[in-house]
Order: sequence, then structure tokens, then C-alpha cells
Amino acid sequence: MENTASAARAAQRQLAAAPAQDRSEALRHLAVLLDTRQDDILTANAADLAAAARADLAAPLQARLKLTPEKLATLRDGVRSLAEGADPVGDPLRRTLLDDGLMLTQVKAPIGVLLIIFESRPDAVIQIGSLAIRSGNAVLLKGGREAAHSNAVLVGLLQEALSSAGLSPEAAVGVADRAGVAALLALDHLIDLVIPRGSGSLVKHIQSSTRIPVLGHAEGVCHTYLDAAADPTMAATLSVDGKCDYPAACNATETLLVHRDFLPSLPGVADALREAGVTLRADEAARAVIGDCEAATAEDWRTEYGDRVLSVAVVDSLEAAVAHIHRYGSGHTESIVTDDEHAADRFLTIVDSASVFHNASTRFADGYRYGLGAEVGISTGRIHARGPVGVDGLMTTRWLLRGSGQGAGEYSSGARTFQHRSLPV
Amino acid sequence: MENTASAARAAQRQLAAAPAQDRSEALRHLAVLLDTRQDDILTANAADLAAAARADLAAPLQARLKLTPEKLATLRDGVRSLAEGADPVGDPLRRTLLDDGLMLTQVKAPIGVLLIIFESRPDAVIQIGSLAIRSGNAVLLKGGREAAHSNAVLVGLLQEALSSAGLSPEAAVGVADRAGVAALLALDHLIDLVIPRGSGSLVKHIQSSTRIPVLGHAEGVCHTYLDAAADPTMAATLSVDGKCDYPAACNATETLLVHRDFLPSLPGVADALREAGVTLRADEAARAVIGDCEAATAEDWRTEYGDRVLSVAVVDSLEAAVAHIHRYGSGHTESIVTDDEHAADRFLTIVDSASVFHNASTRFADGYRYGLGAEVGISTGRIHARGPVGVDGLMTTRWLLRGSGQGAGEYSSGARTFQHRSLPV
Repeated sequence: MENTASAARAAQRQLAAAPAQDRSEALRHLAVLLDTRQDDILTANAADLAAAARADLAAPLQARLKLTPEKLATLRDGVRSLAEGADPVGDPLRRTLLDDGLMLTQVKAPIGVLLIIFESRPDAVIQIGSLAIRSGNAVLLKGGREAAHSNAVLVGLLQEALSSAGLSPEAAVGVADRAGVAALLALDHLIDLVIPRGSGSLVKHIQSSTRIPVLGHAEGVCHTYLDAAADPTMAATLSVDGKCDYPAACNATETLLVHRDFLPSLPGVADALREAGVTLRADEAARAVIGDCEAATAEDWRTEYGDRVLSVAVVDSLEAAVAHIHRYGSGHTESIVTDDEHAADRFLTIVDSASVFHNASTRFADGYRYGLGAEVGISTGRIHARGPVGVDGLMTTRWLLRGSGQGAGEYSSGARTFQHRSLPV
Repeated sequence: MENTASAARAAQRQLAAAPAQDRSEALRHLAVLLDTRQDDILTANAADLAAAARADLAAPLQARLKLTPEKLATLRDGVRSLAEGADPVGDPLRRTLLDDGLMLTQVKAPIGVLLIIFESRPDAVIQIGSLAIRSGNAVLLKGGREAAHSNAVLVGLLQEALSSAGLSPEAAVGVADRAGVAALLALDHLIDLVIPRGSGSLVKHIQSSTRIPVLGHAEGVCHTYLDAAADPTMAATLSVDGKCDYPAACNATETLLVHRDFLPSLPGVADALREAGVTLRADEAARAVIGDCEAATAEDWRTEYGDRVLSVAVVDSLEAAVAHIHRYGSGHTESIVTDDEHAADRFLTIVDSASVFHNASTRFADGYRYGLGAEVGISTGRIHARGPVGVDGLMTTRWLLRGSGQGAGEYSSGARTFQHRSLPV
């Protein structure tokens, strides 16, 4: 695998140094291939689907595995829009005139070699592969075994698209087996970032298996806090949407925190949740007003149910709600429901999570909804990128200095003085 | 140490949530303490200096250890300027109207708990501690044993300054011994970033001992490339400045790459270097024109001499120079000397290093020279921050969403559509 990663590094440097039009050209060709090679793709996918049916794979997994002409058309449109969109490589971020004839520019640059580990959905090969081409990054792609045939064909299309634009196909590589991934995770001098897309256990396993930075989140234990001044109708709407819009998502609400003064209105919220098929697990104070439901234990406060189950805890104050969030949460997304602007401002100021909302469903924490375009992932880390991550999360910077023969000694000696004039980019 | 780090996390959240004026007030008080407690500081420092003299510490280390009223005045002025400067916490970076009454703001937020490991210079306690207060971060400070008395007094001043502004003093903590550092390096859930300031071996040791992200660089193997079209006088100036302005610095030039066509002018460059006291170690092609000097081995190309020693390699093309840089360099800083604008542009485009220069000394790669204000460090990593890092390197972001009761379901169902309108911040 060291040779593969090393070749990817060289291919990435060529990809990044190429003019933007070459990356656009590769993407345009990829869009065409998604049409012209539709039969190859669907045939490979059919083989994966047949194997999945034989192996009795769970129905939702089979659904995610399945490619259709419609899904391919959506992928093609996405790739085409990237092809015609702005190219970030070399974009200036900051210009400073250090002195006459000494101009500093900070520009966007690709991170380098990315290792993407994903499950089930073969669409990810094209979504991530096309983002990588646009941003000048190389990708090593390890998909789930169940999608092996589909992924192989799709990675082949990425390589063909790169070649057709005169770029090295080694910037997009499929990784076949787990042993390959384990070997790659040890190559911290050749791989710059690992992006696992999948279950929390996958992410945790990878985080504990490598020194390479990992972008993502292992858990999404998100909270909706019903403040003393919450509007009861809105409280019900946002509790139901936060839990039920897509219970398996990382940004689904797992715990409802309820201010003691809101308790009289809690039964209405509980009814709405039960009507939506949600099982409640509540502490004593909540059970006293919402009637028969299971008692929550401390374990519930740490649990990402991923299902129509919701824990409910009563708190004495906004500060107590925030303390609960900091103690049990995963720093992903929390929302306060309140008509009290002062309470909302305080919540937004003091909650230390990637996304903090007022009167909106936790489900909005998402790159597409944030308007970031394609989503690379959602990070609960505090380094590099936090929260929903778009293509900017695949970029770093370089500093370019254009001089006219200056040595640093002239400035340390005082013979010359820095101007440090900030200029528009 | 877990309790210390956990208390630092809580103190950091309070520090970050406090109004900017509290952080300013703490900094103002710190500036005052640097004057009023000068005797305490100098007495403690004298004890360290006496121990250093008894232990026969190297003269440059003793010099770096020594505090003077002048150094303290400089520190005080730096702290005062931070106190009156802009506060980054909560600064908006991006505003997007997702829909009517649904406004997303991305704001700057402190990273969290920083572990700073530094050698010798006790000034670092105040420089880094004051940056941390300004940026809302907590710091665990582990200085060198030789500065133990000075560091203890200075950390005490940080704590006193925090307390005087009603902030928790646990946001600045001194770490006494190595065992403490080892314990802290294991706490990746409580410490967000490690910043080692010191020798390459210190940095390497830390990088290999922790899963916490490390900001910094272990090596600075920087190159100056004398292109075919280099002006001979400028080539001599920049070679001498790059090597000699401060040979122990990470941004000093370690290898001179020389285009074959420049060889006739190389003797002049070699003379200038030798006159500046530089010992050359060259490959065969260079030795043929610059006369008697030691033969460079492959090991030289990877060596950061940190001294007035310079290796010289002849290359056949700009591409060969870049290949040498990518193979042996550390991705820190490289400079091309040339009058050929096309060659300069190509070099700036294809060299994959944090800083890439044209006709300027590699010594310019520095936060102060870049106009970033106080320098946190220089990073050769590609994640989070690259190159010279100012206070921005201590910040991450949070996403704040202010709604009016929206659920995500209304948008997935198509009942409502996102506007995604970018607004000025």
C-alpha cells in the first residue's frame, strides 16, 4: 500500500499544479461517462444486489446499495455543476504588502491525499471523487464489501476521467480490503486526512487506529431544550421534527431537556411525540406529568438511539440544561426553544457545540441545508473544521511571497521597516 | 492530571462565554502586574539563573533564560496591546439567510484547552498565556525545568489577572513535571491541541506520544534554488541571508539547489558564503566549480544543520529542483532566485510547501514578518493551520442558527424551499 499512497501523493501534486481547466475537463468527462457507461454501472450494481439478496442484507442497506438511472442522473448533474463551478485551488485568501516589492499572498491549496472509508452507498465514490478532483486532492476510496462491483466500476470512471484530461489516474484509487485500510492507516507521512463515513463504531475504530487526523464524528447525541418561555406548539413541532424527520441521522434529537416551569405544557409535547410513534424514557419529574413511560437511567443520557426513542430530563434552569449538554452530549448540535430572546442569546453564547440553534430543529445541522454545497462530513472535532464541512474542509493554505531580492537581515538590523499593508484580495 | 484538565475545560468555557471586556480587563491587569511584581519575577529568575550557572548550562540557554526589566517592559507592552486589540471570540465569519426567519451565522470560537510545552524562555508563559486569554482558550503550560522558579511566578500572575477580572484562574495552569505531561498527552478527550515550542526532537517525541493534534514542525529543511536565470548578486545575497541571518532558525536555508546553467556564477556565491563563515558540503558537479569542499552524501540532503553549514546540489532543471525538494524537504519554506517570471510562477505553483518564495530569503517565513502579530508557531502540517500561525490558529468556529420554529421536514417535503442567501457579515 505504501507504493499506492506514494503514487497518489505524486499524482495529487500534478493534479493540484494543473490549471483549473484540466480539473474542469476531467469532471466534464466524468459527467459524460456516467451517461455513456450506465449499462456497465447498472450491471455491476446488479451483481452486488444479487449477492446482497443472497446474503439477506437488511432491506435499508439493500436500498442504499441500489443504483438507478435516476440516481445516476442526479450524480451526473452534481458532477456537471462542479465542473462549471469555481475552482478553489490557488484562490487568494489574504494579501499583505510586507514592504515595497515584497508581496505576501495566502492562497487555498488542497490538503493532499485523503483516505475515504464509507459503507454501502456506491454513490459516494462519485460524490467524493468529484469533490476531490475539483479541490485538487487525491483520494484512496475504501467502500463496503457489499458494493465491491459497483465501486470498482465507478472508481474506474474517475480514473478514466482523470486520464482523459491528461491528469494522472493514480489520484483516485480503490482500496479493496480491510488489510489494505489497516496498512494505509499507518502511513501518516503519506496520507493527510481520513474521512470515515458510516456508523459511529466505524468512526471510533478508525480514530483509535491511526495518528492521521480523522474528520468526522463518532456520535451525535443532540439535545432540544424546552425553556421556561418555550411556546408549547413550537416545542411540540421541533421535538417531533428533531426526533422523527430522520431518526437514524446524527443530527436527530436524542434527549429533550425540559425547564421545570415548562412542565405544565409537557403533556402536549409528549402526546405529539407518541402520536409520531416515539417511545419516551423519562426521569421522575417528567414521568410525573407525562404518565406511564419507562424510567430513564444515566445510560440514556449518553445514548444515540438512532430510532424513535427519546429521553426526557427535567432541569431547574438554562444553566442546568447546558451543564447536562456539556456532560453527556457529543458537541454536535443543540437547540433551545424559547420566546425569551435573552435566554436564547445566553444559550447560543455558552453552549460549546459545533452547531447551536434557537427555535429550529436540530435536523438543520447539515452541509446541504447550510448552503455549503456537497457535504464532506460533519465534524465534532475542534481542529481544522467543525460542524457540517463542505469542500472548504478539503483545503489548506500555502503562503506565497514575491520579493525583489530582500534578505531578512535588512529588517532585523533596522535598515528597513515592514509596512504590513493589508490589501484587498 | 485528569482533574486539572477537566477543571481547565470548565474554566475555558467560562472564559469563552464571558464578555470580551472581561478578557480585556484580565489582560490590562496582567500588564500592571508585570510592572508591580517585577521584583518577585526577577528574584525567581535569579534563582533559576544561579542554578543554571551551577549546572553549567550552555551560554545561549542561560541568555534565553534571563529576564531583565527591559524584557519585562516589552512583554508588558505586548500584553497591553492585546488588551486594547480586537477580541476574536464570536466574530462572525459568514452569514447565510437559509430562509425567511432562519439565519445562519458561523462565528469564531476558541479551540478549547491547549497544552503548551516549551523550553528555556520564561517569556513564553506571558506571550502564550496572554494570547490564550485574548482568544478564550485555556492553557496548560509546561516549561523547562531550568526556568521552574520564573515560570511559577509568571503563571501565578496569569491566574491573578484572570481572578481579578472575575474569571476562573484554572484557565491557566502550570504543569510541573514530565510525568504530568505524559499523563496529559493521554487525555485526548480533554485537551484539544498540543503546541510544542522547542527542538525538533522534542516535537517528534510529542507527535509520536499522543493522539491529540500537534501544531508545529519537527524539521525545517529549507531550500534556496538558484535558477538558470538567477541574478548572481541577488543569488549571493539571498544564499547568505537564508543561511546566516540566524542559522539555528527553522526557516534557515539548509540546501542550495543550483541549476546547471548557473554553475559559472556559483563561485561568487560560494565565496560570499565562505566569507560569512559557512562550510559547504557539495555534490560532484558543484565541487568541480567551487573548489575544495567536503563531498555531500544523501544524508546531507535530509539534514537540518542549524549551523553555518550548507549543502549544495546541482540540478538539470527547475522540475529536478522541485523533485529534490519534495523528496528531501520538510515542506517548510523554499525560495527560487530568478529573473525569469515564468520560472518563478511555475515554482510558486508546483512546490508543495507551507511557504514558497520568489527572490526573497527563506528567513521571511515567520508570523511577525508576515504581519500576523504574535506567533503561535510554524506548522508544517496540512490540517488546521499551515506555515506561520498567528492567533487565528487558536480559533475554531461554531455555527449559530436563529429560527422561528422551522422543522427540517417542511424543506424535505418541498413545502418550503431554501433561499441560501449570502449576506455581508
